Amino acid sequence: MEHIEKKQQPVRTIILDTPILDENNRVAAENRTLLQASGVLVLNLISSPGSGKTTLLVETLQALQGELCCAVIEGDQQTDRDARRIAATGVPVVQINTRQSCHLDAFQVQRALQELQLQELDVLFIENVGNLVCPAEFDLGEAEKVVLMSITEGEDKSVKYPLAFHLASVFVLTKMDLLPYLRFDLETCKAFAHQVNPDQDILQTSSFRPDGIEPWLNWLRVKLTNLKNE
Amino acid sequence: MEHIEKKQQPVRTIILDTPILDENNRVAAENRTLLQASGVLVLNLISSPGSGKTTLLVETLQALQGELCCAVIEGDQQTDRDARRIAATGVPVVQINTRQSCHLDAFQVQRALQELQLQELDVLFIENVGNLVCPAEFDLGEAEKVVLMSITEGEDKSVKYPLAFHLASVFVLTKMDLLPYLRFDLETCKAFAHQVNPDQDILQTSSFRPDGIEPWLNWLRVKLTNLKNE
Repeated sequence: MEHIEKKQQPVRTIILDTPILDENNRVAAENRTLLQASGVLVLNLISSPGSGKTTLLVETLQALQGELCCAVIEGDQQTDRDARRIAATGVPVVQINTRQSCHLDAFQVQRALQELQLQELDVLFIENVGNLVCPAEFDLGEAEKVVLMSITEGEDKSVKYPLAFHLASVFVLTKMDLLPYLRFDLETCKAFAHQVNPDQDILQTSSFRPDGIEPWLNWLRVKLTNLKNE
Repeated sequence: MEHIEKKQQPVRTIILDTPILDENNRVAAENRTLLQASGVLVLNLISSPGSGKTTLLVETLQALQGELCCAVIEGDQQTDRDARRIAATGVPVVQINTRQSCHLDAFQVQRALQELQLQELDVLFIENVGNLVCPAEFDLGEAEKVVLMSITEGEDKSVKYPLAFHLASVFVLTKMDLLPYLRFDLETCKAFAHQVNPDQDILQTSSFRPDGIEPWLNWLRVKLTNLKNE
């Protein structure tokens, strides 16, 4: 048993991280067991606010219609605006509002999974709260973390927020259509990302261009084929 | 005294928020007393990663050279890349690396203040960690919170991350030079922000255009004049 005194000493986050993360990891492992047994590819999408996660998801769901059965868990601090955009594609979606919290946790995802028909799904996308820091620390039970970044954010996010980039097997660059209008050097961006994660796949996408998300769709198809062959 | 059992029950963030924030608020009040006595205008800049905070700051410091004495506290999860960009302007800068943490707290700022000659300063900018959620919850002792958003992030960030927008007296739109290339409606963005904070000043800036940050510099000059006349 651990005693924490309220007034006599400053209570700092670091003291409490371990039990919170221990409990989270225990539930994440339960989620992973359930999801693997159901044969669903689960992707945890992590990025800054406004990097284009929801727009990429909407385009992805439309492109995969008739090919794969998908569902989405939407994490937002407030509102169901993103969930409504997803629902308009006809795909099942569960909204989680985290209120005070800046990330999804495995408990929230466990409850959300009860709302979905897992046996019918090929791919479950979890759109995390827009934040590059804490979402990386909380395992949800996903198969893969996907880190996304709009090229408007600059080249160096991977070294400034390294955990998300370290843990994600794939790095999706979004809004590539804006490249001609930005002071953004693609090779510098890739070099930074490979400093943090040498094996990371880096995909260039634009949700507004015809075939602009093909590299991402192909990555996804390969992952799913690998999962089905395991 | 409060007892929290480590194993018998899930330890959730919400149980622990109050003592952490109580201690933070106590130290923030100490910071505020010190800073007000020194006559320094202290601004806490909050935004997503990659919204252009550091670029705006560099342009601001260069524009104010010879007019006002400024200093900067730089918050980043990792690296001193932003601090080095600020230092190149010749302005005093203190870097705080938050490591696991996704926001600055009043304790960190209290230690950083010891590194600065407060009596000599007119304006102290605190660049918070790139994150729209938790930085809003932690008072640092600032005079004003400033929320920034690149127009590439979309119109609706204020309603999805309302606390930062609710607490900031001013909302700085950055990267206005990209407007012709985006699907971004300025009036919708303003209407959302005023839902959350009806009295908020909304400023349009571009750090890459001549005179592109004048609205922000003028806002800052007015705030400083008001402070000196109090």
